[in-house]
Amino acid sequence: MNTNRRVILWERPRYIVPTANCFRMETTATPTPAEGELRIRTTWLGMDSMLYARVQRVSSQQGEPIKLKEAMVGPAVGRVEESRHPDYKAGELVSGFWEWQDQVISCGKRLRKLDFGIQKPSYALGAYGIPGFGAYIALDRIAPPKTGETVVVGTALGGLGQTAGQIAKLKGCRVVGIAGSDEKCELAVRRLGFDACINHEAKDFSRQLMDACPNGIDVDIETVGGKTLEAIVPLLNINARIAACGLMGTPHFGESAFKGRYQNTMSFMYEIINRRVSVCGLVAFDHLRDKLQDFHRDMRGWIDSEEVRPLEDIVDSLENAPAAFQDIFEGRNLGKRVVRVAD
Amino acid sequence: MNTNRRVILWERPRYIVPTANCFRMETTATPTPAEGELRIRTTWLGMDSMLYARVQRVSSQQGEPIKLKEAMVGPAVGRVEESRHPDYKAGELVSGFWEWQDQVISCGKRLRKLDFGIQKPSYALGAYGIPGFGAYIALDRIAPPKTGETVVVGTALGGLGQTAGQIAKLKGCRVVGIAGSDEKCELAVRRLGFDACINHEAKDFSRQLMDACPNGIDVDIETVGGKTLEAIVPLLNINARIAACGLMGTPHFGESAFKGRYQNTMSFMYEIINRRVSVCGLVAFDHLRDKLQDFHRDMRGWIDSEEVRPLEDIVDSLENAPAAFQDIFEGRNLGKRVVRVAD
Repeated sequence: MNTNRRVILWERPRYIVPTANCFRMETTATPTPAEGELRIRTTWLGMDSMLYARVQRVSSQQGEPIKLKEAMVGPAVGRVEESRHPDYKAGELVSGFWEWQDQVISCGKRLRKLDFGIQKPSYALGAYGIPGFGAYIALDRIAPPKTGETVVVGTALGGLGQTAGQIAKLKGCRVVGIAGSDEKCELAVRRLGFDACINHEAKDFSRQLMDACPNGIDVDIETVGGKTLEAIVPLLNINARIAACGLMGTPHFGESAFKGRYQNTMSFMYEIINRRVSVCGLVAFDHLRDKLQDFHRDMRGWIDSEEVRPLEDIVDSLENAPAAFQDIFEGRNLGKRVVRVAD
Repeated sequence: MNTNRRVILWERPRYIVPTANCFRMETTATPTPAEGELRIRTTWLGMDSMLYARVQRVSSQQGEPIKLKEAMVGPAVGRVEESRHPDYKAGELVSGFWEWQDQVISCGKRLRKLDFGIQKPSYALGAYGIPGFGAYIALDRIAPPKTGETVVVGTALGGLGQTAGQIAKLKGCRVVGIAGSDEKCELAVRRLGFDACINHEAKDFSRQLMDACPNGIDVDIETVGGKTLEAIVPLLNINARIAACGLMGTPHFGESAFKGRYQNTMSFMYEIINRRVSVCGLVAFDHLRDKLQDFHRDMRGWIDSEEVRPLEDIVDSLENAPAAFQDIFEGRNLGKRVVRVAD
């Protein structure tokens, strides 16, 4: 337990998917906090598709890319083991954004204490994390659905998708998920309570989606893009709202992934106008300051009442983080993918 | 004056632009109103790019296409000459949507009396018409700008563009127009009071637009699409709003007209997310019921105070309507294009 392992970025992805062999483990000395710092033992890491931006060459608004041979970073949960910071003491649980590393030193900034009644610390990476918060903001501010409306959620089992779908259900909506396998779709219906979930790998995906949305689509929590969006556009009702949260299906993967009727921006805009659609870009971080407290309160209530039941896909131990990360780009996660680094 | 001429659709446009030779004039008997009907003498016709949908083969949400050998239709102003309808009497001015024809019979439905203090009857086709109303709704409901923000208006001299720009000016915004010639741009600045207007035919159009928007773009009243939108996207500020009113630049003209960095829907969506942009489709008709009275009141005040000075491009006589219509697709109008059919 005194060795300090970390995952470093060894080489950049050669093509699209950040595969596990882009990363290597190395071992360093246990770091020591200076005055005003604290040492955290990482207990959980959140695997998030947004982190893709960090392993690329070019910077984006999701942050600067990390340098080669430096530790990979991401959302994390940990326990304070040693504190020389006035605001933290040993034993406290915190979440933040730090290195994929057993033990990290923090100056205490941008940490969040998990003292708000969280039911499981790892939920800080999913239901209570940026994915869950994004879902909350999307349905609260960006594209609020009315009772009885149809809400479509791509990446049905992902952290954002599963939370959005469950919130929409408790608001009285018809919720139709989209996922990449029959197994996932079955989980979305049985475990998350979605009204339907369609496998985007099915040959007649568009037709199945249409059948699952007999009254059209009022709200699209868009996390995928590409062929998923292609199937959604023709079903959008007049005055439909799209909360644009991500493009998991065609991330920054160039244009080849998206061929279809609405692949051209003008064809898409034409539908936007004709159907009076609003498309709103959402970056959850923007809303932390004024909505986080409401969110924590609401989410705690929903999880306590089991109206929201977080679905986690847990992978054990730090050395499996690179493969666990690769998985989410290949659709192998059956829930919010988190890595348990320590108890 | 007793002959009744009309413009019929003789053949459909062969390629993109509805050219004047798609239409022919014919002469018919003066129609007679039955009980409950009225006869209107057409005085003005509004040339509107939206009418494009009427001359095509396929129906759209802008209406059913008209049949070959039938009269072309569009926004119009006229004077009641004979009424057998209880709500109308001879001499009243009305606006509506009817045939390109000297005299028309109406059952009185969907006519609007121009008795609300309109300064010039032809303004019912521009500033007080659907173009002006669209501008009003775009800036009032869809993408309201704050004082000091930068508003970009494509088709700067068109009915919607000129009105939107002038409303944005009186709201204290920096207004940058886009138009298709130096002459138009000069008019937009000198006559309409825009802060700048950029010629989209200039070789360094994108650079000039950037220079004209030193603080970026907060609101885009989008009526063009294509290369105009292409130049606008990189200048959009965080939380910018796009009111999607039309796609004049690439109407339904297929995809060849739009090649560029954001031609792919996913590239466009990526910017929407990163810049937290909202894109809202607007069809002005939707808002008639609850905003028309406010609009008439506000517009009357603005025109009286010369804060809005409608710029019309008047073409004389019904037989010139087809060429006047072709002109707007080829950018030859220097203001809201209207055809004076009779005094």
